[in-house]
Amino acid sequence: MTTGDLTGTGASSGGRTSRTAPKLEKLLSSSAGLMAQRGFSQTSIRDVANETGFSLGGMYYYFKSKEDLLYLIQEKTFSSLLEIQEAAASHDGTAEERLRKLIGNHLAYFLSHANELKVCTFELESLQDERYDRIAVLRRRYFSCMAHAVAEVLGESPNHPGVRHKTLFIFGMLNWIFMWFDPERDEPVDRLGDEMVDLVLNGLNGGKDG
Amino acid sequence: MTTGDLTGTGASSGGRTSRTAPKLEKLLSSSAGLMAQRGFSQTSIRDVANETGFSLGGMYYYFKSKEDLLYLIQEKTFSSLLEIQEAAASHDGTAEERLRKLIGNHLAYFLSHANELKVCTFELESLQDERYDRIAVLRRRYFSCMAHAVAEVLGESPNHPGVRHKTLFIFGMLNWIFMWFDPERDEPVDRLGDEMVDLVLNGLNGGKDG
Repeated sequence: MTTGDLTGTGASSGGRTSRTAPKLEKLLSSSAGLMAQRGFSQTSIRDVANETGFSLGGMYYYFKSKEDLLYLIQEKTFSSLLEIQEAAASHDGTAEERLRKLIGNHLAYFLSHANELKVCTFELESLQDERYDRIAVLRRRYFSCMAHAVAEVLGESPNHPGVRHKTLFIFGMLNWIFMWFDPERDEPVDRLGDEMVDLVLNGLNGGKDG
Repeated sequence: MTTGDLTGTGASSGGRTSRTAPKLEKLLSSSAGLMAQRGFSQTSIRDVANETGFSLGGMYYYFKSKEDLLYLIQEKTFSSLLEIQEAAASHDGTAEERLRKLIGNHLAYFLSHANELKVCTFELESLQDERYDRIAVLRRRYFSCMAHAVAEVLGESPNHPGVRHKTLFIFGMLNWIFMWFDPERDEPVDRLGDEMVDLVLNGLNGGKDG
């Protein structure tokens, strides 16, 4: 395995991808669905083959093991979410507006990619060694993006001791949503995002009139 | 199975318990440790026997199946946490003080019973039918306890639409702690509780001087 190509297949870089991207998309999205429902440990490569209609040999073109597959899902999901969020973090406007955008984007991404995000959120520990390290780097970048926005609202340095906990509290609110969100009851997500940002910015005391 | 004794063993009620309580405590606590680490589906009754030194026959006195065991852990944990929290909710003082107490108590309970609380938090879905329904009742009581405190701070009815989401956001902050808490870095839990309550009551904008 080279450091430049963790799957050993070239599936995630180079010209080969452009021709095979739609198939890979389908494979990752179906696999994320299975893993989100059953958990990584309870999902077999054979389950993925049954679900997608791929042969075992056909899947081998894209990944060499179940852990490769999990890595590909997490790498793709975090990279695309980070791209959206790092753009939002560099937008003009006030610090509050940037924080509002980060929280709103996360919730919108949750709605459109619930399975992939659930796998990212709950299955980091199922990766090992270099794959773990690479995803941990992306997670730290994501944490840092949110922590900078929190620090900016507070008028503090991102290294201020209070910033870490406050950022973790926000990720708690965001990630716990997997446990209770019901589209029928809790949509639209814009309103939910506004409610969360209002609590984060002004607390219950600031929301007494709302 | 009677509705009064879900385990079918009498272990959770009656005089038999008083003589066997310390052994049952040890059994539940060790089992919760295994399930918290590996997950319910990855923990076998044989693992529990190996960990605790009980024979399979000896454990059968207390519970009849792995699901019985999981039910006993959750029932005992939620009942004792609810007792603490329903007492706190009925204390004199301001609404803010009661909310502060509820959040502080939850975090203190997390520190002293991390495994049991983790099993309660992540393994409700591993219970079925009547066991599921009984634990769901305890969870709803716990949710309601927190929602009443939130509503009281807001000066709203507990049925006000905004109360549910705000309460879920608070449970998100509280429950996500399993994912990041590091005693070396994040103690003392009193301070952590104060930071959380300050965010919940006054938001980042209210914490700018803190």
